[in-house]
Amino acid sequence: MHYTSETIERAVDMFASLPSIGRKTAQRLVYHILRTDKTYADNFSNAILALKEKVLFCEQCFNYSEVSPCPICSSNKRNGGIICVVADPNDVLAIEKTNEFNGKYHVLHGILNPLEGVTANDLKIKELIARLTNIDEVILAINPSVEGEVTIQYLAKMITPLNIKVSRIASGIPIGSAIEYSDEATLARALEARIAI
Amino acid sequence: MHYTSETIERAVDMFASLPSIGRKTAQRLVYHILRTDKTYADNFSNAILALKEKVLFCEQCFNYSEVSPCPICSSNKRNGGIICVVADPNDVLAIEKTNEFNGKYHVLHGILNPLEGVTANDLKIKELIARLTNIDEVILAINPSVEGEVTIQYLAKMITPLNIKVSRIASGIPIGSAIEYSDEATLARALEARIAI
Repeated sequence: MHYTSETIERAVDMFASLPSIGRKTAQRLVYHILRTDKTYADNFSNAILALKEKVLFCEQCFNYSEVSPCPICSSNKRNGGIICVVADPNDVLAIEKTNEFNGKYHVLHGILNPLEGVTANDLKIKELIARLTNIDEVILAINPSVEGEVTIQYLAKMITPLNIKVSRIASGIPIGSAIEYSDEATLARALEARIAI
Repeated sequence: MHYTSETIERAVDMFASLPSIGRKTAQRLVYHILRTDKTYADNFSNAILALKEKVLFCEQCFNYSEVSPCPICSSNKRNGGIICVVADPNDVLAIEKTNEFNGKYHVLHGILNPLEGVTANDLKIKELIARLTNIDEVILAINPSVEGEVTIQYLAKMITPLNIKVSRIASGIPIGSAIEYSDEATLARALEARIAI
């Protein structure tokens, strides 16, 4: 490489190892840090270290938290009778931002993917089933991909016999989008799931 | 905010403070680090700290380096009679990658910008002039923006009286680009600087 400093090269390598960050962007980020003061670099470095030192999994919902149970699981303002099942912690964040859901969560940490060798034992499915006492409804908020569909069907088959209502979030045309530009699968699903007005 | 951990929120804030990184991307990067092992976070954190601890300015060319003079300035395989003047350290990197230049560099750390209060004293211009003994040519590799143009004219006016050849890198249509999509200023410059074949 053409860097005049191995330290810069190593930092560029680290940033470029992050998802969606190419080498050119990594380089720009490193030069940005070089231009800032030492406090900024210290804070940045500490923020990264703290992720590994302070963040753990909530033993109930398996979301990231600094305490277990996490603030959502231990809150008595939230309806413990509804569990929203998601694949990843960032899905919790996305749903929380809507301010539309007041139940609790369960993070699977992935979806079933037989081709990549991800089976039910690799996900927090056992732990989900173990939580299902005094539960009225389980909402499956899982991406409508092929593997997501498999996961949804698998979970529905396991939970329905427990006499718990199982639902999935709706698929359809995104708000602000156009019918003309929708793919066939989405449009077919939107027609099928039409709502009386 | 909706994060279940202040540590995660702080790390997202840090990443989102980098140029061209929005909050959604920052969040994805933080979740990526959470999923990796502790060694990765340690290495990342150390790489950032090292930027401030090990990287300094070369006292000759003012590029980033871990030693002064930097490997390029101290190399006797490079032609010390030609100095390529650039605005920023990443410009050195871009030129080095072409493998077309075998002289030395001088980094100004900015360009003249009277509107934003950047004057000649804020740039490494005095230091450039001080280096100009036994120099055959100064190449100005500065972005062809309005401020870049001002900087180029300013430097040319200072260096020409020293009986040193001053040149600037060519402007024109980028290789692989089309005349049809070129802006008028670029096309006008390309016509003006036409080359006999």
